[in-house]
Amino acid sequence: MALRVGVIGGGQLARMMIAPAVELGLDLRVLAEDEGMSAQLAATAVGDYRDLEAVRAFVKDVDVVTFDHEHVPQDVLRALVDEGVAVHPGPDALQFAQDKLVMRARLAGLGVPQPDWAAVHDAAELQAFLDDHDGRGVVKTPRGGYDGKGVRVVRAATEAQDWFDQLPEGEALLVEELVAFVRELAQQVARRPSGEIVAYPVVETVQRDGVCAEVIAPAPAAGERLARVAEGIGRSIAEGLGVTGMLAVELFETDDERILVNELAMRPHNSGHWSQDGAVTGQFEQHLRAVADLPLGDASPRAAWSVMVNILGGPTEGALGDRFAAAMAEHPSAKIHTYGKAPRPGRKVGHVNVSGDDLDDAVYVARAAAAHFLD
Amino acid sequence: MALRVGVIGGGQLARMMIAPAVELGLDLRVLAEDEGMSAQLAATAVGDYRDLEAVRAFVKDVDVVTFDHEHVPQDVLRALVDEGVAVHPGPDALQFAQDKLVMRARLAGLGVPQPDWAAVHDAAELQAFLDDHDGRGVVKTPRGGYDGKGVRVVRAATEAQDWFDQLPEGEALLVEELVAFVRELAQQVARRPSGEIVAYPVVETVQRDGVCAEVIAPAPAAGERLARVAEGIGRSIAEGLGVTGMLAVELFETDDERILVNELAMRPHNSGHWSQDGAVTGQFEQHLRAVADLPLGDASPRAAWSVMVNILGGPTEGALGDRFAAAMAEHPSAKIHTYGKAPRPGRKVGHVNVSGDDLDDAVYVARAAAAHFLD
Repeated sequence: MALRVGVIGGGQLARMMIAPAVELGLDLRVLAEDEGMSAQLAATAVGDYRDLEAVRAFVKDVDVVTFDHEHVPQDVLRALVDEGVAVHPGPDALQFAQDKLVMRARLAGLGVPQPDWAAVHDAAELQAFLDDHDGRGVVKTPRGGYDGKGVRVVRAATEAQDWFDQLPEGEALLVEELVAFVRELAQQVARRPSGEIVAYPVVETVQRDGVCAEVIAPAPAAGERLARVAEGIGRSIAEGLGVTGMLAVELFETDDERILVNELAMRPHNSGHWSQDGAVTGQFEQHLRAVADLPLGDASPRAAWSVMVNILGGPTEGALGDRFAAAMAEHPSAKIHTYGKAPRPGRKVGHVNVSGDDLDDAVYVARAAAAHFLD
Repeated sequence: MALRVGVIGGGQLARMMIAPAVELGLDLRVLAEDEGMSAQLAATAVGDYRDLEAVRAFVKDVDVVTFDHEHVPQDVLRALVDEGVAVHPGPDALQFAQDKLVMRARLAGLGVPQPDWAAVHDAAELQAFLDDHDGRGVVKTPRGGYDGKGVRVVRAATEAQDWFDQLPEGEALLVEELVAFVRELAQQVARRPSGEIVAYPVVETVQRDGVCAEVIAPAPAAGERLARVAEGIGRSIAEGLGVTGMLAVELFETDDERILVNELAMRPHNSGHWSQDGAVTGQFEQHLRAVADLPLGDASPRAAWSVMVNILGGPTEGALGDRFAAAMAEHPSAKIHTYGKAPRPGRKVGHVNVSGDDLDDAVYVARAAAAHFLD
C-alpha cells in the first residue's frame, strides 16, 4: 500500500505537492480549511486545524503528517505526537517558525548571525532599543504574521502603541534593528528525520510591499564564500532546530558583506518555487521525500539561471481566460503555475518559472508572461 | 471556471496528465474502467468506454474529451461528435490509429515512406506476399494489438492460419515486409485544433520482447538530415490525418538510410516519457494544451541527453518498498515515476528519467535505478 502523507492546510503549497506525490506514488491527503480550496483535488477532509478532534480524525488514516502552513497550535501538535503520530516538522522545531521571539532567542544560542533584537514589553523598552539603533527599528508581532503583515518599521515607540495596547499581560513584541541590506537572499535545505540534509543553491529574492515578487536562482554574483556561508547557516539551523522537511531561511545581505537571518519557514516556500522546473528535484517533491523519510533528491539546478515571478491579483475572468492563453502563446518557454484561487488584488494566484542560459532573457520572459495577468 | 478535460481510460497515461493539469489549472476528469486504476485520483466516473450511455453520462460534465488509449469504438466517438462534443483526437483521425490497414492505405496516399505492405484475406494471398519478400513478413491483426501483441513474424503462411481462421468474413490481415532496420526511432508532434504544430526531437527507442525498454532523447548520432526527415514525417501525418493532441510516429531506420513508418499512436506515448523531466514542456502537459486548444509549449530539450528506462514487473512488496528507497538513495538524480499498478511480470509499472551532459552517465544511472525493481 502506498505511504499516506497527510497535509494540514489546503492552500497552494499543498496543491503543489499533488504533482510530485502522484509521480512518486505517495497517497497525499489534505485537511482543507474549506471546500473548494487550492488543493481540493487531494482534499479528503474539511475541518479546523485548531480543533484537536478534527485533526485527530484526519490523521488516523495517514502515516505521516505535514503542513501547508505553520499555524497549527502547539497543543494540537503535541497531543498528536503524544499519541504516536509522525509529525514533520514536529512541534519542537515548528515553535521556532511560529514565534519570532522564540526563534531569535534560539538562533542567538546557536550563534547564527542575525540583526540586533530585543523583546519589548512596553513603549519605554521599545524606545530604549530605538535610541540605541539610530532611532529606527522593525517591530514585529511574534506570532501570526506573514507576507508583511505584523511587521512595521517605526521611528518612535508611539508608532507601535496600538500593538502594545492589544498585547496580553506578560507578552512582548519583537524589535529588530533596521538592517541596511543590499539585497535579500533565501537559503533552502531539506532534512530527513534520519538526519540526511540536502542544500539548494542560495537565491536572490525581490520583495514588493512586503510580498515576494521575484526570485533568481542561483543568486547573481554569489561568490563561493557567500554560497558557503548561506548553506552553512541553513544546515546549522536545520540541525540545531531539528527541522524535518523543507526549511527556508530568509536572509539579508548587508553592504559590509554580512549575512543575517531575517525569517524562517518550515515548509515549501515561495523562494523555492523556481525549483519545480529549475532543479532536478523540486522543493515540493523534496518536502514529501523528507517528511516521508525517503532518500533526498538531487537539488542541483537544471539550468544556468532560473527566474520565478509571482502572479498577484490577476484578471477577474479567471486564470484560464484569454490572458492565460495570450501569455502561453507569446512565451512558449514560460512554465505558468496556477493555484485555482479566486483573484483578489495582491493575492498570490500563480507564478511563472523560466529557465535558461541567459539571465536577462529569463527575467524578461518571466516578467512578460506574468504581466499578462496584471489588471 | 476551469476548463474541464475529460479523459476516457484510467491508465498511467491519464495518471501522468494529473500533474500538469493541476499546475495549468485544468479540471481533469477521468472515466476509469474500474475502481483503483492508475489515474484514480482524477477518476470521476467508472464505466465501460464501449457503452455509449456510460460515455455520454461522463462527457456531459466536461468541455473537451480525450483519451488514455485508442480503443473507444468509432460508433461511440461519432455519436459524441454528432451531439456536439469536442473530441480530440476526433474519430476521423483516430481511425488511423485504430486500424493498421486503414493507416497503411492512408499513409500511402500521403506519400509517407513505409514498409511494403498488403491486405491479405487468406493464406494464399499471404504466401504470395512472402514469396515476393524473401519468404518473410510481419503479419499483424489490424485492430487491438499493442506492446507486441497481434504481431507475428512468419516465414510461411501456415504460421498465421489460426488468425485467418478467426477472421470475420470479408476482413483481412495486414502483412508488412520484415524491415532490416538498424534501429528504431520515434517522432512526436503536438497539434492543436486551430492548426499549430510543435515537434519534439526525434528519439531512439529500444524494444525488448516487443515492449519499449529504453528511450534516448535526442536520438544519438542523428544528423540534421535525419532530424529534418523525421520531423517532416511527423508534421505530414499530423496535418494529413488531422490529428489533435500528441502524435507518436514509430519509425524504422534502415541500413540504407531510409526512415519508414512502423506504427502511430494518437496520445502521449511511452517514447515521450523522457520529456516529463527532459523537455521544457512534457508530453502530458503538451497533450492537455493541444486538446484544450491552448497555445503549445516549447518542446526543446532541457539537457544535452535524456534517458528513459521502463520499470517492468517489479517487486511484489509494492513500489514504495525498500527497493524504491534504495534506488532513490543510490541515484539522487534519477526521476522515478510510478503508476500505482500492481506489479506483474512484464507489466509497465513505472519508469525512470535521467538527464545530463554525458549520455553514458545518464544511461548508466537510469538503468541502475530501474534495475532495483527487477525481481
